[in-house]
Amino acid sequence: MRVRFAETDAQGVAHHAVYLVWFEVARVEYLARFDGGYPGLRSRGVEALTIEANARYGHPAYFDDRLEIGVRCTDLRGARFRFEYGVTRAGEQLAQGWTLHACVDAATLRPTRVPAYLAEAIAAAEATAPASSS
Amino acid sequence: MRVRFAETDAQGVAHHAVYLVWFEVARVEYLARFDGGYPGLRSRGVEALTIEANARYGHPAYFDDRLEIGVRCTDLRGARFRFEYGVTRAGEQLAQGWTLHACVDAATLRPTRVPAYLAEAIAAAEATAPASSS
Amino acid sequence: MRVRFAETDAQGVAHHAVYLVWFEVARVEYLARFDGGYPGLRSRGVEALTIEANARYGHPAYFDDRLEIGVRCTDLRGARFRFEYGVTRAGEQLAQGWTLHACVDAATLRPTRVPAYLAEAIAAAEATAPASSS
Amino acid sequence: MRVRFAETDAQGVAHHAVYLVWFEVARVEYLARFDGGYPGLRSRGVEALTIEANARYGHPAYFDDRLEIGVRCTDLRGARFRFEYGVTRAGEQLAQGWTLHACVDAATLRPTRVPAYLAEAIAAAEATAPASSS
Repeated sequence: MRVRFAETDAQGVAHHAVYLVWFEVARVEYLARFDGGYPGLRSRGVEALTIEANARYGHPAYFDDRLEIGVRCTDLRGARFRFEYGVTRAGEQLAQGWTLHACVDAATLRPTRVPAYLAEAIAAAEATAPASSS
Repeated sequence: MRVRFAETDAQGVAHHAVYLVWFEVARVEYLARFDGGYPGLRSRGVEALTIEANARYGHPAYFDDRLEIGVRCTDLRGARFRFEYGVTRAGEQLAQGWTLHACVDAATLRPTRVPAYLAEAIAAAEATAPASSS
Repeated sequence: MRVRFAETDAQGVAHHAVYLVWFEVARVEYLARFDGGYPGLRSRGVEALTIEANARYGHPAYFDDRLEIGVRCTDLRGARFRFEYGVTRAGEQLAQGWTLHACVDAATLRPTRVPAYLAEAIAAAEATAPASSS
Repeated sequence: MRVRFAETDAQGVAHHAVYLVWFEVARVEYLARFDGGYPGLRSRGVEALTIEANARYGHPAYFDDRLEIGVRCTDLRGARFRFEYGVTRAGEQLAQGWTLHACVDAATLRPTRVPAYLAEAIAAAEATAPASSS
């Protein structure tokens, strides 16, 4: 992923709010490995809400930097799941973060368990993933 | 309207794509004068699509600048309407632009005439507005 | 502050990353009370970096919602300061968050103490502010 | 390029302002073929300003759509150059646009000719490019 010019700010670096967008892009790509991914989840009438987000910024990212966003699903129980992220540039860690999500029924907006097909696929993937997977 | 820090880019000025967002904010405020405005339009099952947008950039806008966005509805016939914009700072014109829109039925996405209540209200407003209204 | 259409996403609500932008807008307005505010800080050769950001989302915000962003500076020592935010709509709390910042010398990017004029002005303001100030 | 969730709006489609960002991403990639690209231009003390932008929206783009942004430099004389864009999804054209740019001296902000190395490289590339290159 390359830093877009539109993502920079007058400090000459990527704006801090953009990291949440990058986390989302990484999360969507991560989920895409599992049976339709996030669009597949929505087509099953399940919506995933973001209920908390956190980012810690160590070193700035600059326009046109080539970044890698590591992502892991570190916790998944009931309706909730948590993702952790690491933003690196050429192996150097620039930032870290995590987001917490809840599945809801798209019609009623009531919490609903993460669908079993997805929970199992993620559990299997994380079991075999190296700790520093990206 | 003040230029947000997140709207600036590494050239130290407001990013050019942000002007389309400002145009939209001005358009929504303009329409808000008429019976529910844009949300009112949507609640009547009419969706307004943007089908063309244009912006000309003369002088840059900087972080925390206080801008005024002038807006006029300059043409409204059938399903289409056109807005023109001027971005000024302390009376100095920084940029201009226009957008072209089409009303569609929210369910079928087929073109539908601009509702009469809105067409008439806009025509009345523009008839009495000074040419350089904002 | 009104939710812009461009700030909504395909879930029909304000996108979660936008809250960090709103926090920044509120922070800039807060600082504007003190001798030039954030631009004044930059003109003194001091840059304020965001080193951590957190947001918790309780209830969604919708297009055209009128929001209030409460903001307090809750901690200020040495080079660091922390802001806390509350996003409310008609008195109902929608979201909360906090950000952590560090002052650096704009030339060397080394940490530098929050300038005394600002530290004192903030301390005085927070001492007299009600706990739930906005 | 995939449509990010953060790029969608409450109409369920990619927000129209985002197309200007996509155009920019395509432009930066296009220029990257030529000796340092846009960052190279900046490192030579030349800044490229966007002085006009236009987009026409035919069909909407949806979350997670895989888009291709075709880009050509169609005119380059003196300090100015123009790019044209086509946004397609699986061969179907969704939108078109163009942007007009001017090179300025980064120090004085006065217009300056597009550097010869870049003008020649672009001319050569466009001479051999098929009319519908992307």
